[in-house]
Amino acid sequence: MKHYSKADILSWERLFRTNLINGISGCKPTMLLGTSSSSGDYNLALFSSVVHVGANPPLLGVIMRPPVVDRHTLENIRQTGIFTMNHVHAGIVEQAHHTSAKYKRNVSEFEKAGLTAAFLDGFTAPYVAESKIRMGLQMVNEIPIPANGTLLIVGEVLHLYVSGNLIGEKGMIDMQEAEGLTVSGLNTYYTCNRFMELPFARPEENES
Amino acid sequence: MKHYSKADILSWERLFRTNLINGISGCKPTMLLGTSSSSGDYNLALFSSVVHVGANPPLLGVIMRPPVVDRHTLENIRQTGIFTMNHVHAGIVEQAHHTSAKYKRNVSEFEKAGLTAAFLDGFTAPYVAESKIRMGLQMVNEIPIPANGTLLIVGEVLHLYVSGNLIGEKGMIDMQEAEGLTVSGLNTYYTCNRFMELPFARPEENES
Repeated sequence: MKHYSKADILSWERLFRTNLINGISGCKPTMLLGTSSSSGDYNLALFSSVVHVGANPPLLGVIMRPPVVDRHTLENIRQTGIFTMNHVHAGIVEQAHHTSAKYKRNVSEFEKAGLTAAFLDGFTAPYVAESKIRMGLQMVNEIPIPANGTLLIVGEVLHLYVSGNLIGEKGMIDMQEAEGLTVSGLNTYYTCNRFMELPFARPEENES
Repeated sequence: MKHYSKADILSWERLFRTNLINGISGCKPTMLLGTSSSSGDYNLALFSSVVHVGANPPLLGVIMRPPVVDRHTLENIRQTGIFTMNHVHAGIVEQAHHTSAKYKRNVSEFEKAGLTAAFLDGFTAPYVAESKIRMGLQMVNEIPIPANGTLLIVGEVLHLYVSGNLIGEKGMIDMQEAEGLTVSGLNTYYTCNRFMELPFARPEENES
């Protein structure tokens, strides 16, 4: 067991630190956020800092970097108040990863990455047609994180789309059947293989 | 592709909704939080709402429910300002899951679950000796989330412990070698199997 102090961590070369510290939070979701500007430019970007906030009302959070340079996703959410979250599965991971390249404001990452924008039920933010689990959200809180100037964007789920029979009778989503992926660090993807379902001991801290 | 509106979601039976909405945020980390009260009672609790906040300084976040009933983890963090995060691997998942059962204030979940408290380098919050990746953190922000009264606790990593040769030369942690687990919903665990490492295209929104 090797020990690294905060001083060690801060002394590391930047990329090494970025890779390692992005890995210590454990398995992370792989989620494409779809947005539209008020003038109708679409944006699609990959995020892994996504977190469950609550089930009733249904709330998801995502950490965003401070808007010191162009942050199209954040700007679009501020303009329109809405966004979509779309699960990345094994069949679209290369396309999804490609959205992390930097494009100019008026370039659609959908087209560049080879993914299809879908507009559903009157919602004006684009969904990813190829995704099997998709949500349409309304931003309800934009919360500054003083420690490093990032933001926690909290969204309420207005629409949920799930393909096929991925939802079991008790409400569980089968992530293996969904070909769900998890990412460690910034660019290493792992498949999820069913290991164990344990008896439902309602957790004291973790439920909601 | 099935469509569920917010009204549908709110109309579901509570457990079904809890299971499903806890699943839509994608693959989640499985992390044991170790704390000590100011009077020396130890607590260990399982959390999946953990999120990467930043790499420099190294910051992790965790969502906690509002303290309307006893929340030992939150109370202890407030009393001492520190906590540990310990990765759950396949070999200790049943023990880790068992910590989600409700115990009284003075009962140690370590003992009840069959895990070993370790105290390292003068840090007074307990680590899980059986965990392969462990962090000692200092709380730097406690941020209320207005939408549902939960809290985002942000901690700075003061100590990092990683076993064996899990860290690659570029800083990536091998989650398959680490027997890392991800959880979907509240109680279905999946192993992480290496699928694809894609070229490092520095992401615009997601890096830090």
